[in-house]
Amino acid sequence: MNKKIKPITSPPSKEELSTRLENVQALMKEHDLDYYACFDPVNIYYLTNFAFYVHERPFILVIPREGVPTMLIPKLERGHVKSRARCELNFEVYFEFPCKLGENWHDHYSNLIPSRANVGVESTMPMAIVNHTPGKIQVLDLIEEVRIIKTDYEIGRCVHACKVVNKGHKVLLKNCKPKTLLFALYKEATNAMISYIIKDIPNANFKVTETMGIVWPPSISHDPHLVPKIFDSIEEGGPHVSIVQAQVDGYGVEIERTFFIGSIPEKAIKPFETILKARELAYSMLKPGTLMSEIDIKVKKFIAEQGYGNYILHRTGHGLGITGHEAPYLAEGYDRPLRSGMLVSVEPGIYIPGIGGFRHSDTVLITEEGYEKFTKAPETRDEVLLKT
Amino acid sequence: MNKKIKPITSPPSKEELSTRLENVQALMKEHDLDYYACFDPVNIYYLTNFAFYVHERPFILVIPREGVPTMLIPKLERGHVKSRARCELNFEVYFEFPCKLGENWHDHYSNLIPSRANVGVESTMPMAIVNHTPGKIQVLDLIEEVRIIKTDYEIGRCVHACKVVNKGHKVLLKNCKPKTLLFALYKEATNAMISYIIKDIPNANFKVTETMGIVWPPSISHDPHLVPKIFDSIEEGGPHVSIVQAQVDGYGVEIERTFFIGSIPEKAIKPFETILKARELAYSMLKPGTLMSEIDIKVKKFIAEQGYGNYILHRTGHGLGITGHEAPYLAEGYDRPLRSGMLVSVEPGIYIPGIGGFRHSDTVLITEEGYEKFTKAPETRDEVLLKT
Repeated sequence: MNKKIKPITSPPSKEELSTRLENVQALMKEHDLDYYACFDPVNIYYLTNFAFYVHERPFILVIPREGVPTMLIPKLERGHVKSRARCELNFEVYFEFPCKLGENWHDHYSNLIPSRANVGVESTMPMAIVNHTPGKIQVLDLIEEVRIIKTDYEIGRCVHACKVVNKGHKVLLKNCKPKTLLFALYKEATNAMISYIIKDIPNANFKVTETMGIVWPPSISHDPHLVPKIFDSIEEGGPHVSIVQAQVDGYGVEIERTFFIGSIPEKAIKPFETILKARELAYSMLKPGTLMSEIDIKVKKFIAEQGYGNYILHRTGHGLGITGHEAPYLAEGYDRPLRSGMLVSVEPGIYIPGIGGFRHSDTVLITEEGYEKFTKAPETRDEVLLKT
Repeated sequence: MNKKIKPITSPPSKEELSTRLENVQALMKEHDLDYYACFDPVNIYYLTNFAFYVHERPFILVIPREGVPTMLIPKLERGHVKSRARCELNFEVYFEFPCKLGENWHDHYSNLIPSRANVGVESTMPMAIVNHTPGKIQVLDLIEEVRIIKTDYEIGRCVHACKVVNKGHKVLLKNCKPKTLLFALYKEATNAMISYIIKDIPNANFKVTETMGIVWPPSISHDPHLVPKIFDSIEEGGPHVSIVQAQVDGYGVEIERTFFIGSIPEKAIKPFETILKARELAYSMLKPGTLMSEIDIKVKKFIAEQGYGNYILHRTGHGLGITGHEAPYLAEGYDRPLRSGMLVSVEPGIYIPGIGGFRHSDTVLITEEGYEKFTKAPETRDEVLLKT
């Protein structure tokens, strides 16, 4: 936990991207696949550095067992792909969606894979594409599997992204005064983060750059996935719960805090202390080898013993990386061990209607020695009691 | 074209949503389906008014041939769904993703559909869900089909959304001076639109509200799907191409213009005039009954006759509604007739490396009499020549 990891803001090198591809191709060999067809924009971004929104014109990356992948793209996007992709690629270009008979995307696509091939596809692959995929098809999430262990480059990018959310969260808390509109907070926090990002990465790709900074005031903090109304405002007391997230030129992280303004309501003290202890318990298990399901089971058991078992709404944590939500999961049912290089959120929560929500979340790297927390903000009862 | 359609800013009524559902159920009967399973967040929004981002916890709407649909949701989102959905719904709630054996989303899901049922699924349905769907499965885009013809309510919402983009485009053009940074333009245009939206719809759902206002300066306007760099700037001359889009509390529209600053380069005159004429040709065919493929074929033929056949990168237009890109398509290969109630973009384009891009786009309703254009901005050569 004392190794200092440097933030990285440069785009991935060709070597970084070819290492990722080789890791996928190694898994393809293990599963005896001749081809892997990839449609998920997140996975395509991971392997190529090219980002796009899903629309009716499909992009499909066809990865052979060895050698250079071929990307099926619409003509309109050729310049866009070439300007962003930083790996070796072959292209198969179709004109439009829809197109005249014989020139549609699937006419081009079905030529890229021999009909006797063993072909892997993602579990997110849409039926319309699976139905046009030649060969013997198996559903296997190989790229998501590779993404679970971060490369040094990815870790450096996430360290930088955490600096961005740390800054955003600081600005957010500084502006949290009774009656401040949530919309005003949102603008302050996101402006601060966007300014930080474009200062460090002037050519950041805005298709994969997004910032969010918002607070759930006590009246709704018990319901953590409601979308707060922008004309609602900060209140005295608490618990408020903040969420500050950023995807910084492709790398997504989060920080969240439970906090109070002016005073802590009597009824909020025990659940808040319980969450701090649940968090400590989770952190005490964060090291290579621990089963992720075990962490969640023990944390939930502890919360239940304190009398709050009926107020748990979610697992203890989830992975982060080029998205803000991905495998692995600190969740009952996910019986895999932690490994060095995983990046996860740690965020046990309690949600009590009439009292409010209690959750801190941080972005944490699993290391050989245990873990390293990349996000930083007030944590203890004294620290999270803000002045009015 | 003289009927004045009023803008609507209120959320959909229960009746509006049940009409949409009935239209889907009528198609289910035509195709002899017992159930239709819907995963696409756009389609779920269309039927329920509930919006979500796709993440690893699936939401699935199971529609029976008759009666009330059941939505499979994660426990965490129950409050969120209930606060936004405005139709009758049953709920099937699972705890988390992943979950302990026997309590996963698919354990709940597979109980919602009998194993002998005829089941329709969307072409965008991911393999992981299809593989857990009981019954005899057919891929049929029934909800997308219903969405092609807009209800009066949807039209009113889109009229309002067009007022937002008209305003955004006006602000964008006003700020277009040589050396203005694209990022500054983006902020001016999006701030203007967001302010307009929250004035008219204070409770707008920000999960389905998004604004974009940007300009492709002459150096990149020939490549319409590049992502402009935010520190690039407006130049003298042209062609510049603007894109102003908004999804306004769920309803998406666009306006785009080719424009010049100070002067029009000699080489740009003929392609610009060609685009104006190609546009006129497209509009002259906009009425119920015209085959959409015919419009695209004739427009492309005209452009080719003017010598720009090699510089066409896309179809003549696409549908809009609760997304900014959807069926129907004004495209060769899409051999269906226009019908009253369709909402489409009209945007033939020419893209010449070394000279630039030429495209106007508007959001246009097909009416019994022909069409009604909802967006408004400078169009002619004189109008699009701005002062330095």
